[in-house]
Parts: sequence; structure tokens; C-alpha cells
Amino acid sequence: MKKDEINGRIAALRDAMQQNGVDAVIIPQTDPHQGEYLAEHWQVRRWLSGFTGSAGDLVVTRDAAFVWADSRYWLQSAAQLDGTCIGVMEDGKPEVPSIAGYLCSVLPKGSMVGIDGMVFSVSAAEALESALKAKGISLRVDFDPIDGLWTDRPALPKNEVFVHEEKYSGESATSKMKRVMAEVTSQNADAAFISDLAEIAWTLNVRSSDVECNPVVTSFLYLDENGGRLFVDADKLTPEIRGYLADASVEVSGYDEVKGFLASLPADKRVLVSAAQTGVALRSVLGERAVVGKSPVAMLKAVKNDVQLEGVRHAMERDGVALVHAFMELEERMAKGVETTEMDVADILLKHRAAQPLFFDLSFDTIAGFGPHGAIVHYSANKSTNATLKPDNLLLVDSGANYIDGTTDITRTISLGEPTAAQRHDFTLVMKGHIALGTAIYPEGTRGAQLDALARINLWKEGLSYLHGTGHGVGHFLNVHEGPQSIRLNDTLAPLTPGMITSNEPGLYREGLYGIRCENLVLTTEAFTTEFGRFYRFETLTLFPFDLSLFDTALMTDAEIDWVNEYHAMVCERLLPLLDSHAQAWLVKKTQPLK
Amino acid sequence: MKKDEINGRIAALRDAMQQNGVDAVIIPQTDPHQGEYLAEHWQVRRWLSGFTGSAGDLVVTRDAAFVWADSRYWLQSAAQLDGTCIGVMEDGKPEVPSIAGYLCSVLPKGSMVGIDGMVFSVSAAEALESALKAKGISLRVDFDPIDGLWTDRPALPKNEVFVHEEKYSGESATSKMKRVMAEVTSQNADAAFISDLAEIAWTLNVRSSDVECNPVVTSFLYLDENGGRLFVDADKLTPEIRGYLADASVEVSGYDEVKGFLASLPADKRVLVSAAQTGVALRSVLGERAVVGKSPVAMLKAVKNDVQLEGVRHAMERDGVALVHAFMELEERMAKGVETTEMDVADILLKHRAAQPLFFDLSFDTIAGFGPHGAIVHYSANKSTNATLKPDNLLLVDSGANYIDGTTDITRTISLGEPTAAQRHDFTLVMKGHIALGTAIYPEGTRGAQLDALARINLWKEGLSYLHGTGHGVGHFLNVHEGPQSIRLNDTLAPLTPGMITSNEPGLYREGLYGIRCENLVLTTEAFTTEFGRFYRFETLTLFPFDLSLFDTALMTDAEIDWVNEYHAMVCERLLPLLDSHAQAWLVKKTQPLK
Repeated sequence: MKKDEINGRIAALRDAMQQNGVDAVIIPQTDPHQGEYLAEHWQVRRWLSGFTGSAGDLVVTRDAAFVWADSRYWLQSAAQLDGTCIGVMEDGKPEVPSIAGYLCSVLPKGSMVGIDGMVFSVSAAEALESALKAKGISLRVDFDPIDGLWTDRPALPKNEVFVHEEKYSGESATSKMKRVMAEVTSQNADAAFISDLAEIAWTLNVRSSDVECNPVVTSFLYLDENGGRLFVDADKLTPEIRGYLADASVEVSGYDEVKGFLASLPADKRVLVSAAQTGVALRSVLGERAVVGKSPVAMLKAVKNDVQLEGVRHAMERDGVALVHAFMELEERMAKGVETTEMDVADILLKHRAAQPLFFDLSFDTIAGFGPHGAIVHYSANKSTNATLKPDNLLLVDSGANYIDGTTDITRTISLGEPTAAQRHDFTLVMKGHIALGTAIYPEGTRGAQLDALARINLWKEGLSYLHGTGHGVGHFLNVHEGPQSIRLNDTLAPLTPGMITSNEPGLYREGLYGIRCENLVLTTEAFTTEFGRFYRFETLTLFPFDLSLFDTALMTDAEIDWVNEYHAMVCERLLPLLDSHAQAWLVKKTQPLK
Repeated sequence: MKKDEINGRIAALRDAMQQNGVDAVIIPQTDPHQGEYLAEHWQVRRWLSGFTGSAGDLVVTRDAAFVWADSRYWLQSAAQLDGTCIGVMEDGKPEVPSIAGYLCSVLPKGSMVGIDGMVFSVSAAEALESALKAKGISLRVDFDPIDGLWTDRPALPKNEVFVHEEKYSGESATSKMKRVMAEVTSQNADAAFISDLAEIAWTLNVRSSDVECNPVVTSFLYLDENGGRLFVDADKLTPEIRGYLADASVEVSGYDEVKGFLASLPADKRVLVSAAQTGVALRSVLGERAVVGKSPVAMLKAVKNDVQLEGVRHAMERDGVALVHAFMELEERMAKGVETTEMDVADILLKHRAAQPLFFDLSFDTIAGFGPHGAIVHYSANKSTNATLKPDNLLLVDSGANYIDGTTDITRTISLGEPTAAQRHDFTLVMKGHIALGTAIYPEGTRGAQLDALARINLWKEGLSYLHGTGHGVGHFLNVHEGPQSIRLNDTLAPLTPGMITSNEPGLYREGLYGIRCENLVLTTEAFTTEFGRFYRFETLTLFPFDLSLFDTALMTDAEIDWVNEYHAMVCERLLPLLDSHAQAWLVKKTQPLK
């Protein structure tokens, strides 16, 4: 990418700003579906700036331009933006303002900020507008920063749509649409308009491969009492899928027809839209018809049915078998002195997972961080960073797959040689948190944020901490990150409900030395009911041992040691029948009881 | 109260509703300051309904009327409303709708709900309006339900205002106003309008006795860069106070002049109001001038300075001495067989506290609940319930005082005879939670809701729970309940910050048997700073032993036993020098180490 080309694009954008009376523009790194992974078509910030990171918004005023890069992208953004007119705001540093705070400080009263309301959610746009208003700055939500500029913009994804069969999803699209509409009615609306791709895929039992690692279909969905209307590129639909949708009373329109359709709805139609997931531009088209509320799908999707749970348990067994073979291969290579890199670890895991029945794709890019790389929370090895494993440090491996019957996500930290006392101490503190959370019992209505500290308190008492969430919701043959529930420092207000699958992944990161994270997926399930109400507990779904050599049992209670031993006994019981004798011997050795 | 009189008042209200085109009205149990304790002048709901409970809103439609009573008032409201046209909604039961939900279900589209916008906060009115709008119901906020009806309405309180001297408050009003204005500026406003009585009392270092147990001044306060304007009844001000306010650049207007003053402000004045504490009617008067944001006072008030903390530590010593004398007297009466009731316990505590220097008033009505009464969380003994203590059950005593140098709040649960194994088991579980929370260490930014589960998890694991908060903020010679911080199931988003005083009061309530609550006040203070950031811990402020006979050490870890012994050693060290030899001997016996 030539620097001049970037500067030229920014200059052209500023011309358009001037013509439209816009003094500043914000280009977020997302799409009209508030997506985390973007198709090429939506890489507007990348095209305008040349910065390729997966996160970080671009702000352009008449005389300045900055990318707000989070800590994992401080170096990369500085390198990629070097020589352009765009600077880096090192987001997360105390002295770095928020975007709204920056705009309030540099723009005079009476200024105008422009955004593309398709890629700003209702709640994001309202928060921005309210912050700007306090300084007397106005916001217009219909300014498309690349209108007429990005002439060779890639087309929308054209990947084929297919059905997620009911034998795996456990519920027909018709039944789901009925339950969604009941939720819509309870929010005093007549219809729902859904932008979130995972919610659409779940509701209609359809999948595709439009987005890396997320088997979703680029589309919008409108639902009312008569059925649905899917806005999707016609090229993506086979005759079979068209028939399937018609049978479910779902009509089809082009992806670009969505605004016209919403504008044509009767004036008294009350259409529910989710504030956090719907583009403010589409809310504007709906006008008085919009009922801004909660997603009518998120809670239904998060609570898995018995068919899904049976599928996930099977997927966990196959994933466990793949992990046994992968870690055995890794151990054998190390023993034989075969040079093995972080990228090799990812390849080995993919090879063994791909050999399993019902494998579809990875559920996210494998993180394999050796030594200091393990301390970089979102590390992803590439050719320039790819470290060779050595027997003198820890290896952190966070990986997962989408199988047709379930999604997996597991992190294990292993020692490639003799661990140090400090490593065992740190690992054990992390495991104490993992166990405290995993064995929690909690009343109906409890939110993840209330339990989060159980995983952290042993670290905090020693002045240690980790800044990522302890747990995220996990989809079913869908996105590995889903809401509404989470277990984290910030509250997402969704109660942990039986049927929800959430990760349990405390960690500890020693900069320049090593990183530790221990992650299982857990299912919220009924514990008991007393005169004080209903209580829930977690059932562990993930099946693979933790590294025995890293436990310091002197730091553990008897109950904690028992938990590890019982978990390992369960892993053996479930996986041994699926392994050959060589692998069985390996697993038995890896699950010897702690004393 | 004659039932006909109540029915007549409701009929007159309905006439006014009809004349004004109002289909339903909500009368909340609060005042224009969003107060918890109300002066007689503001007892509108009581006057209209005859129901005297301290909480519970009244809703009147054209053909129905209900009080939404929470569980502590289900029986009382039913008895007091019997024979009137007003029914009871047993709030808290799953089948009982919210007020907004009820109105949406009974009122047709196009209806109008009326409220008095002086007694509904901006946020409460907005939430109500949004819920009603979904059903096509509109809200007007200028309907005063007693306009022209309550002809003998009591006047506003006329109690004298006095200065809280700087040797106790630790900071002048001028300095506080300057710090508040810095907060106002940071929220992009030019001025602040404050309705919260505790915030006004703190800012100006003034107190009065307008409200039971809350030493506040009924008033509003306007602040800008030139100083302040206090809206207060002139009868309450001595020449000394007038001079004091003038010296602090605070002008005085009548309480009723507030609306006119706000309406007369320049059109470009940007006035910060707190969404949760300001009447929506006053926001309406401000119109475009209103900047709806966070209270500019709450965080400043919650963080105590060194003078306040020194005062609180002294107040705790005097309170501890009073408690020693009170519990000694109680024990002696029981030993001698002198009949002693719950109300006697309250009187004994008051007598010993009132004998202490700097005593001003109780900080709340003493709760003394014997046996089953201890299980009623908001129990307050009256002549008809007043139980006589017997040596076969537990006594729960929750009490506190306002001293000029600090506010106290303590709960102890004691056994009046030989406790049962079940009582010791339950007490020990509650204490394990109290200790886990009290010994927590947590990073900067941690909110109370994140720590709350530490106090509950041991109860939850046995299917037990309590539904009240674990901790509330505590004022300094001010309200015993203050924000913004709290430690509870719901998140209040305020970080626990060094200088904040919060209660630590887990409990367990066995209906029909006994109640247990263990409460100390704790101060957030610095623990240490590491490469992971700043960490805080709690310092215990309250000085009085827990009942040794109720601990079951078999359920406790060594660290928990050590905590109790170290706490009791500190209580001895601080209180023994202040006691005579008889009381010293008693305290030493009550603080023997647990084994």
C-alpha cells in the first residue's frame, strides 16, 4: 500500500466532508450486522487507512486523522500508518481520550459530525449524540464516507446457504419463529426486524461460510405473524434452500431491498428492533414504527435444547479425541527433537480436528503462544513472530472447532519441560479460580458478573489480575462468542439460565515470561430447589486433562484436589472407549490422581 | 380513619382526573427530593389511601385503585385498606405485574396517565413513559393529584438549620462547592441544580432535623461559578446561619421560589441535573438548559477525608462503649429474670448511646427482633408485636447513631441461652460470608456487586440465601444509607474507592424460627500497588464482639478463626482503655480466642 494512495483517499474524503458540511467523521470497524469478523466488502476502515487490525475505529477531521488502536495493535498500527497523514491514538492509556471526548475537545460548538448510520447501532449512535450534544455539536447519521470513492469495492459474499438439519438443531424454524414472535408480542410489538447474523442463522436453521469461523449468512430478517422475509443476495440460494424457506413461510428479497421494504410497512406496524444490534439508519427508516427494545432472539438462542446439548456432548468427545492425538503428536515431536513452531501447533490441531466426523471449520483462529507469546492475550502467530517451541517454558493453546452438532472452545497451558516453582504457583492460583467458579452454586436470576470475582479473588489477594472476561456465551454450530450472558468484570444483565453454555477461562499473564489460561466450557443446569428458591450449578462439558506437572498441591484445599481428580476421572471414562491402546495409555498417564 | 372519608377522597380525585382527561394516576411514596423518610407535608399517598406503610405506591384509575405493597406490608395494607375502594397488589409475587405493566394491561390505547412531576425523577418518568408508549398510552407530568383536595395539608418542616463545623467535616463549604463545580464543568455544564437533601447538607456543611433520623435540611441548591442559591423556608434560618451562608457566597430564596428561579435562568445556561434525583417537572422548567447527567456530589460525598475518618473512628469507640454497657445491662436483666421486651432493648441502647458525647440522634429506628421476629427483615417492634425475650432463642439487634463526628450502624445476633446446632451452623455460614467479604482484596475500579457473591457463596452452596443487599454506603453525620456505592445483587456501577464507608451485613432468615445478620462498617483503603495496578482492601471500623457461643469452628478454616480472634483482639485494644473494670472484665470474657 502506497502512503500517497492513503493520503489521497483521506483528502478525497475531506473534500466530501466539506461539500456536505461535515467537520468530522467516524469510521468504525464493523458492518451493518455489528459483526466482529468482517467480509471484505465491509473493510472500509482498512481501505481508507491501510491499517489491517481486526479492531480500531478511524476518526477524520478537517485537519487531523487518527486510528484508535487497542494495546494489541499499538505497534502494528504505528508501522502501517507511518508516513501517512493518520496518527495512532493508543486506546487504553489514561491520557488517551474516548473518540467522543476527543471530538468534544477539538471541534468548536456548532460543528457537525457525520457517520454512516448503517454501521452504528441505535445505542452507539445515541450515546455518541448525547456526548456531542453536551458540547453543542450535532450528529448526522446519513454520511457515507466512501460514497463515490471506493470504486473497486469487493462484492458481498456469495457463499451458498445450507440448512442446519433439525436432527442437530432440535427445533424447526417454524417453531422458533413462533417463540420469537411470542417474545415480540410481550414487548408490545407486531413484528421484529433482526440484523444480527447469528440470530438469523439460529432462527431459520440456516448456515453459510460468509464470515471466517462464523458459519452465518449475510442477511437481514423481518418477522411478523404471517411468517418471515429474508433479505439476502439471490446468488447464495439454491432451489433447495428456496423451497425450504418457502415451506417455513419465509419469503426472499434482495439484501439491498431492506430499506425500501421497511419504508413501505404500514404506518401503524410496531416493529421491534434491538438497540445494540440494529443500525440507527434502519431505525430512522422505521420512524415511529420502531419499538426499540431487547433482542427477541438472544435469550432463546442462548438456552440450548436437549438435542443441542446431546450434540455438544458428542462434539466434546470427538474434540477431546482430536486433542489427545494432537498433544500426543506434539509431545512425540518434542521428544524426538523435531523442530516445531507455534504455527505447527495450530496445523497439528487442525489436522486432527478435521479428521473428526461432522467437522465444519475452526470456531476461531488457534492461539498457540510459547513463553512470552503466551502473555499476549490475543496473540496470533504469523510468519514474522512464529516461535520455535523449546523445553524450557510454557505453551498456551486456545483453540476450538465448529462441528455440525456443536461448537468447542478450550484453553490448556502445558509445560514443555520441568516447570519452575513460580510457574506452578501461578498456574495453581489460576486453577483455584477456575475451580471456584466451576463449583459455584447460585440462585435463579444470578448474572455472570456476580460470579466473576470467584475466579479472581485468589489472584487479587496476591496483587495479580487478568483484564479479559472470565466467560463468554458459546453458540451451537455458530459463533464461539455469543450473548446475552457473560462472566466478566462488567455486567451484561443476562441471568445464567439452565441450557446456557459459557466458558470458564481465568488466566494470568507475566509480560515477557509466559501466559497461563485454563478454559473449559460449562453448562448451567439445575442444582436443587429449597424454600429459598431454585439454585443452579455448572456441568463441565469440555473433556481434556490439565497438565499435572503444573499443580502445586500445597496451595490447594482437599476439595480443590478432589475436583481435579474427579474431573480427570470423568475425562478418562468418556474418552478411553474412543481411543486406541496407545492413546489410552497416554491419557491414563495424564490423568493420574493428584495427591 | 373512616373508610368513607378515604372513598370520598378517591372519588374527588377521580372527578379531578375526569376534568383533566386523565385516565390513571400514580402517587409514589416519596417527595421532591426522592427521599426515603418523608415529612408529614409529603405524605400524599397516606392521606389519600389511609395506608401508613413507609413504602408502596398508589395507583388510581377511573374504576379501580391499588396500593403496590412489598412483602413486609402485605398484611398491614390489607388491614388498613379493608372496606375502602382500594385493593392491595402484593408486590414481589410472580403473578403481580409492575405498575407500568398493570396500566398497559388495563388501559386502552390512547389513554392518558398523570403524575406529579415534582415527585417523579427524570429517570423514573422516562422509564414509565417508555413502557406506556409501547401500548400507545401517553404520560403527562403536571397532574397534581391533591390540588385543591388536601385543604389541611401540614406545612413544610420549620426546624432550625445549624452548621456542621469544619473541625468535624474536614472541609469548608467553599472548598466543596469548588470541587463540585469542577465536576460540573467536566460534564460540560455551567451550573448544577441539586435536589438531594443529603447532598445539599454535605456541600454546605449544614444540618437540621427535618426528617426522622436523617439530619438534613428541606431545600434545593443551585450552584454556579459565582456561588450558590439555597431554596429554603426562611423560618428555618437564624441570623447566624444567614451570615454563614453569605460568607460562603450562598444566597437564600424561599423553598417555593425554585421553579420561578429555574425558569428565569439565561437560555444558554447549561444546568447539570441528576437523572435519578431530580423531579422531571424541574427538568421540564429548565428545558434545553438541562444537562441530564450524574450527580456531581455523590462520589465526592462518599469519599471521606481524614478528619471525617478520624471522627468516625472516635464515634465507633464511643458507640462500642455504649454497646458494651447496653448488652451488659441486657444480660444482667436476663440473668435476674427482669422482664425485658424488644422495645426495652431499643430503649436501653438509646439510653447508653445518648449518654455519649457528640450524640445527636439515632441513625435509624432500632431493629430488635427476638426469635421469629428476627426473621422479618425490616421488623420494627410496636406495642402490638413487642415480644418478651426468653433464654431459648436468638436476638437480632440492628442499630446505629448519628454522632456529630460520624454515623454508626451495627448488627449483632446473640443467643440468649444455649444455641442449637442448627443456629450455630447458620450463624457460622453467615460469618464465613462476612469474613470472606471483609478480607477481600480487589483492584481499583471494582464495584460492590462484583464482591457481593463472596458473602453469599457458602450459603448458596447449601440452598440458602438472603434477599437484601450485603452492603450500603454510610454518610458522615448524615443518612445511614447513601450512594453511590453498594454491595448487592444489583449493580450500581460506582467503584469502591478509598475513603468510602460501606456496611458488610450478610444474613440468613429462617421464617418462624429466627434471623441472623452480622454487620460491621468497613472502610475501603489502599492495600498495595503491583505491576498489575492498585489494589484496595477493607479496614473494619465497627468495634464490638460477635457472640462466641454461636461459632461452629468445625465449619471454619484456620484463616477464618484467626480473623475472628484478631478482630476481637482489636476490639479489646481499642475499647478496654475506655471502660471501667467491671465492663473490662465483661469485654475480656466476650473476646476470648476461638480455638
